[in-house]
Amino acid sequence: MALTATEPAASTGSFGPATALSCRECGQRVELGPTFACEFCFGPLEVAYDFTPGAVTRESIARGPKNIWRYAGLLPVPADVADLPNMNPGLTPLVRADRLAAELGLRSLHVKDDSANPTHSFKDRVVAMAVEAARTFGFRTLSCSSTGNLAGAVGAAAARAGFESCVFIPAGLEEGKVVMAAVYGGKVVAIDGNYDDVNRFCSELIGDPAGEDWGFVNVNLRPYYGEGSKTLAYEIAEQLGWRLPEQIIIPIASGSQLTKIDKGFQELIALGLVEDRPYRIFGAQATGCSPVARAWEAGHDVIQPVKPDTIAKSLAIGNPADGPYVLDICRRTGGSVVHVGDDAIVDSIKLLARTEGVFAETAGGVTTGVLRALVADGVLDPEASTVVLNTGDGLKTLNAVADSGVTATIKPSLDAFKGAGLV
Amino acid sequence: MALTATEPAASTGSFGPATALSCRECGQRVELGPTFACEFCFGPLEVAYDFTPGAVTRESIARGPKNIWRYAGLLPVPADVADLPNMNPGLTPLVRADRLAAELGLRSLHVKDDSANPTHSFKDRVVAMAVEAARTFGFRTLSCSSTGNLAGAVGAAAARAGFESCVFIPAGLEEGKVVMAAVYGGKVVAIDGNYDDVNRFCSELIGDPAGEDWGFVNVNLRPYYGEGSKTLAYEIAEQLGWRLPEQIIIPIASGSQLTKIDKGFQELIALGLVEDRPYRIFGAQATGCSPVARAWEAGHDVIQPVKPDTIAKSLAIGNPADGPYVLDICRRTGGSVVHVGDDAIVDSIKLLARTEGVFAETAGGVTTGVLRALVADGVLDPEASTVVLNTGDGLKTLNAVADSGVTATIKPSLDAFKGAGLV
Repeated sequence: MALTATEPAASTGSFGPATALSCRECGQRVELGPTFACEFCFGPLEVAYDFTPGAVTRESIARGPKNIWRYAGLLPVPADVADLPNMNPGLTPLVRADRLAAELGLRSLHVKDDSANPTHSFKDRVVAMAVEAARTFGFRTLSCSSTGNLAGAVGAAAARAGFESCVFIPAGLEEGKVVMAAVYGGKVVAIDGNYDDVNRFCSELIGDPAGEDWGFVNVNLRPYYGEGSKTLAYEIAEQLGWRLPEQIIIPIASGSQLTKIDKGFQELIALGLVEDRPYRIFGAQATGCSPVARAWEAGHDVIQPVKPDTIAKSLAIGNPADGPYVLDICRRTGGSVVHVGDDAIVDSIKLLARTEGVFAETAGGVTTGVLRALVADGVLDPEASTVVLNTGDGLKTLNAVADSGVTATIKPSLDAFKGAGLV
Repeated sequence: MALTATEPAASTGSFGPATALSCRECGQRVELGPTFACEFCFGPLEVAYDFTPGAVTRESIARGPKNIWRYAGLLPVPADVADLPNMNPGLTPLVRADRLAAELGLRSLHVKDDSANPTHSFKDRVVAMAVEAARTFGFRTLSCSSTGNLAGAVGAAAARAGFESCVFIPAGLEEGKVVMAAVYGGKVVAIDGNYDDVNRFCSELIGDPAGEDWGFVNVNLRPYYGEGSKTLAYEIAEQLGWRLPEQIIIPIASGSQLTKIDKGFQELIALGLVEDRPYRIFGAQATGCSPVARAWEAGHDVIQPVKPDTIAKSLAIGNPADGPYVLDICRRTGGSVVHVGDDAIVDSIKLLARTEGVFAETAGGVTTGVLRALVADGVLDPEASTVVLNTGDGLKTLNAVADSGVTATIKPSLDAFKGAGLV
């Protein structure tokens, strides 16, 4: 299809198997639209589906594209979605981490490495969904509040699909994330404050004429956006040979990703695509921003907001919207919510790099650090199949491991090399 | 398979369909071994194959893993290669670049985006091959001379596969490349000098007892290593629906990649996997390191070495070993060799980002810049299917686009937003 350089491609405007938005709190159903909160109880709206039995099979998935659109039949997107201009993320490697498993004394460990996505974080998955919703609703500008990764994902996706973009980030982010947000040519606005301030500002903007025609991927498009995280569940199951992992460690920022991975597993069970066997979900936070882990430790159902102070900036959401649902899921599945400090995060980034050649962002240091803590505390079953998520790329948080530099600088001679004590 | 944390996994030690090393100059054949230069004429050794007709088909490839090992039957690797610990690169996106095509007035343009590889450059492809050769030959340490990307790829692959590593880079590389080389825990040695000095040093080291048991991926393992670039040709053809592109733009550092893509296309034709139709190969260099383009312009067969001075450091090889073969291939296929300056490189990185959401390394700015130059000069057929390679990731060369920063920094209020002149 020939496109002009400035207009989003038309979509068939269908949401595939999605039939409505449904309130997670009161169950009230509303039409599919750019809304995110229940008008009756203010609860969060989620996409509801009517799956045709047998319409999606392991075989139909295997024949699909080598990206998230192989699961289009389980997502709120039109059937021809793979033909539309989109970043097409997903089908990232599930790395068999035998050497890390050996160091930790585990039998079966895999790393789901989402740094392989187009802008090198899992955010490409959720943005890909929001782009299709924005296209259908006729928005021309994409926006978001972001801790960094999302800004880059929105900038790139807007460029690919022909939208304008204007993204909002907290001031003082890592250089890699700022440049990656700005290089695609959209507007990048830094807000004096932390992520929670940025988020509040966006909620205000969306109610103002200045922002009312914008598609905020994680605000008014949030129900669609969130569904992108289900594809992590689908891929992990498919890559394990259509089996669920017995233990999985997932980072918590807003908590949305963890809840959607659980939703994805439940859908696979309901559709008969995997056997219904127990799985335990563990949530991972940085000590410097651990409101969900603190609530877990205290046995509370309510999350006490915190002011983040951690190197894991992509997880630095002090008031996580889906925190209570995370607590529910970790309780229901026999998991827990654990936090680790910045030193353990850095050590764990290096451990993962040294044993598996995976260079993780600080968020991957958090999940790997929590993996180690759970092993050390005897919480994990070392015989059970375990998956740990790396949701971002080490190149975006170079400062965390900036002490990893050259071993020596020498003149180009054998004598200099031998004299440097390297061999 | 259970691995210890410190030993490379055993391999079946087979080189699959490869039967010998063959001298590119005099045709002399020698046994498959860790050698790279003909003992008769000092010409470069290449892997020679005996392909069983019909053993590799489009269908057998489609059933294979979703990485370069789907082409294992065309590579010097054992049949069980996909079960061995390796970074498993490849099957990177071939992005349909409709918006960039519209800006340039082309009908059919694709970007082969190799930033999607595990360490975000095409080097993962060649290192994956060298790792298997190193395993077979019993080396325990991997090494290389690198302009940056290769060092990261070797560090990661060594970690994954359980080798020691010691890599050599020129002093003064981009921080991202240095950290990415070092974070995997191997030794990173900076050499006072440019890449050609590093390369000379490695050739010396390999003849010394200090380095004689090392697998230098781009020296004594070079014949195997080089074959990894063939997978770019296979993937592009498969992703175009088993057709060759009519025009392709490839960056030139040593020139090896360009020659191997041509070799890959020729193999596909010989095996009947694609129709035998003409294709034109264009080589791309940065003006500040353009010895092959200068020879092309002057009509020379001999390359005059230069001292590199360009922001495209991953292409900054002043004495490119495969330069003469590049000239041959571009002549034979009706292409050419073109160079663009640093300003055009930066502009082209931004153009590619703005139109397609692909954030390229400077090398991708070179190929995109050459694409624009070829269009402007009327050299390319605008109706012909065209592929441009992006071989690395913008996150590794942030400095090139460091002027891409925040549009504005504001207080978190609507008044501040509206006062900033953004809407």
